[in-house]
Amino acid sequence: MSLFLRVVTLEEAVRVILGIAPHPVEEEVPLEKALHRVLARDVNAAENIPGFARTTVDGYGVQAVDTVGSGEAVPAILRLAGEVSMGTEPGRPLERGEGIYLPTGAMLPSGADAAVMIEHTERIGDEILVKRPVAPGENIIFAGEDFPKGAVILPKGTHLSPRDIGILAAAGYDRIGVYRKPIVGIISTGNELVPVNATPGPGEVRDANGPMCAAFVEEAGCSPRPYGIVRDDRGALGGALDRAIGDCDAILLSGGSSKDLRDLAASVIAEKGEVFVHGIGIAPGKPTIIGQAGGRPVIGLPGHPASAYVILHTLAGPLLSAMSGAPRPERRVSVVLAENIPSQKGRVEFVRVRIESGRAIPCFGKSGLLNTFAESDGLIQVPAESEGLEAGETVEVILW
Amino acid sequence: MSLFLRVVTLEEAVRVILGIAPHPVEEEVPLEKALHRVLARDVNAAENIPGFARTTVDGYGVQAVDTVGSGEAVPAILRLAGEVSMGTEPGRPLERGEGIYLPTGAMLPSGADAAVMIEHTERIGDEILVKRPVAPGENIIFAGEDFPKGAVILPKGTHLSPRDIGILAAAGYDRIGVYRKPIVGIISTGNELVPVNATPGPGEVRDANGPMCAAFVEEAGCSPRPYGIVRDDRGALGGALDRAIGDCDAILLSGGSSKDLRDLAASVIAEKGEVFVHGIGIAPGKPTIIGQAGGRPVIGLPGHPASAYVILHTLAGPLLSAMSGAPRPERRVSVVLAENIPSQKGRVEFVRVRIESGRAIPCFGKSGLLNTFAESDGLIQVPAESEGLEAGETVEVILW
Repeated sequence: MSLFLRVVTLEEAVRVILGIAPHPVEEEVPLEKALHRVLARDVNAAENIPGFARTTVDGYGVQAVDTVGSGEAVPAILRLAGEVSMGTEPGRPLERGEGIYLPTGAMLPSGADAAVMIEHTERIGDEILVKRPVAPGENIIFAGEDFPKGAVILPKGTHLSPRDIGILAAAGYDRIGVYRKPIVGIISTGNELVPVNATPGPGEVRDANGPMCAAFVEEAGCSPRPYGIVRDDRGALGGALDRAIGDCDAILLSGGSSKDLRDLAASVIAEKGEVFVHGIGIAPGKPTIIGQAGGRPVIGLPGHPASAYVILHTLAGPLLSAMSGAPRPERRVSVVLAENIPSQKGRVEFVRVRIESGRAIPCFGKSGLLNTFAESDGLIQVPAESEGLEAGETVEVILW
Repeated sequence: MSLFLRVVTLEEAVRVILGIAPHPVEEEVPLEKALHRVLARDVNAAENIPGFARTTVDGYGVQAVDTVGSGEAVPAILRLAGEVSMGTEPGRPLERGEGIYLPTGAMLPSGADAAVMIEHTERIGDEILVKRPVAPGENIIFAGEDFPKGAVILPKGTHLSPRDIGILAAAGYDRIGVYRKPIVGIISTGNELVPVNATPGPGEVRDANGPMCAAFVEEAGCSPRPYGIVRDDRGALGGALDRAIGDCDAILLSGGSSKDLRDLAASVIAEKGEVFVHGIGIAPGKPTIIGQAGGRPVIGLPGHPASAYVILHTLAGPLLSAMSGAPRPERRVSVVLAENIPSQKGRVEFVRVRIESGRAIPCFGKSGLLNTFAESDGLIQVPAESEGLEAGETVEVILW
């Protein structure tokens, strides 16, 4: 409990949460479900790719030596040896002095070592006039030239894009070993909270953090599991936490904007494990808890959605990324700051900005507002040692 | 049929495909399914948000006038009027000379117009010493200050992020009007093609484009519908196209790397509608077809996956984006080119590059290879009028 009331830097908070992140686990999925999943192991070529020498143009398969010295005025003259249809095997090896018609992608007969583009030939009866020489290997791909048997096609940790899905298909992988999506439990606490479809009475507000955290978890490639709204009491919070510990790999506990409730959350987590951090030296987002309950990492997020979102991006993002086995593709852009941003020394401040015509415009306003949150495109980080940023500086924006 | 054999610029090809893109259609989805969907209409505040004045700090609700002139040495002394619990309504209005304890987010009693942070107070019995003055409105949010009733919260066309999901939840939208996901049919043609789980015989290759196109369509927020591999004959291709016309909003027809097969595809599309473009002045990707069949836009993609992917990004991307109602969030980065790129004047060339230490390194190699495709991070566009790009230039990379 030594860190119970200790306020740490964001860097230290990230170190703590990464230190308790469970390791990713492998599972197999069909190729059509593999988009945006993360490879759990290197994928190797099980065979030569391509499996045979093939053309990359419409034209004639030849022995390159037969085209040496040819030109518009002095074409090489080859005997037509028929053609190879797509998806079929040539009937016999190609002899010296012969050419065989091959559509793009067709299999070269043995003996052939290059292809002449049809544009550089003329056909007269059973003869082919070749008007430009080709070098061995020109306009063809040899068997295994793309990926020789055993070569690594895509390395472990690859976050699979549509391009990668195509490459895995070409290599014959209809099932893929990827990391299992971690299950992340989401609990909202607060006596003032009502569900989205309810009409809040006086003093009540709708639970925005629950659906927002679930969407964030989903976007991060994990599976959200919602536990609904829990009242501010030890028994209810402890019960929800126990259920989440049983089902989930990690838990986001949202709410607790008042000090009393934060203390309650920290003490319930501590009962079931340990609280490592209770407060981070950033604004907004200071009242954040990092703990472990029943062996699962738990992040206690601030109650206001705009503050909670900063913690999702700065702390939950790295956790989910470590658990799902992939570096999180964080989107950042460098832009010029349009206005001065004053800042308090001694803590990292995150300022919401919107981006217009390539400039970052700070969305100033009361911290508890959703409207500046709604209109912002992302965050600027003002370092702890800084007294602010000046208009005209180039700043990095972490895009939402 | 006037454009049947006409090669157009990429800009013109994009104009043509956007000209025949079906308009997006609205549907309603539950909030928990709305992530990454696109708002089909403005979302307005159905009521004031927040519905009541609330604090943004732990502290005391006061009448600001009572704190005027207060300081560490000369605190203002207020009578404690109890406290407001989260989610409940204050019992009575706040009188002059009173303060009431409010946890963050609690409802202000009428009469109160500001909150003093607890850090700036001292409690002695039933008296509160206030050591710093507050201005009216300080540390509170008034009813409707965030979004007054009727205000636009999120505009039509918003591509919903987790942040937006939170804001919609706060505003009470448990069902959202979004654009329906367009259904995109995917047909692979080629006698040489076998399914991913088959072992190719001599001259055969696995269908990479089918799974790759499906994943691209999925990533673009649309629903892929696969029609499998179709043999290179008029009947089979026409039949598959008819089925896709019946089920889908648009069709990606992939394959046809040889001229004969491209002509077959164009003629089958023309039978059922019209071919507008047959060839685009870019490399790779020249043998691309744009047409309409049964009123559905059809793109005929080149056979090689690396070429097909360029067309997916440059042509199918804008189509899917128009059909799904959202600007496609294209990821581009500006980096310094590490090596010269020679290029042929008169056509736009797309060169695959990988990004290392902030520099773009061209992935040169035979155009028909998957390995340079696998190792690349994106594309550089070399303009038609250019003879190449020089090392040291800043270039824009379209990230895969």
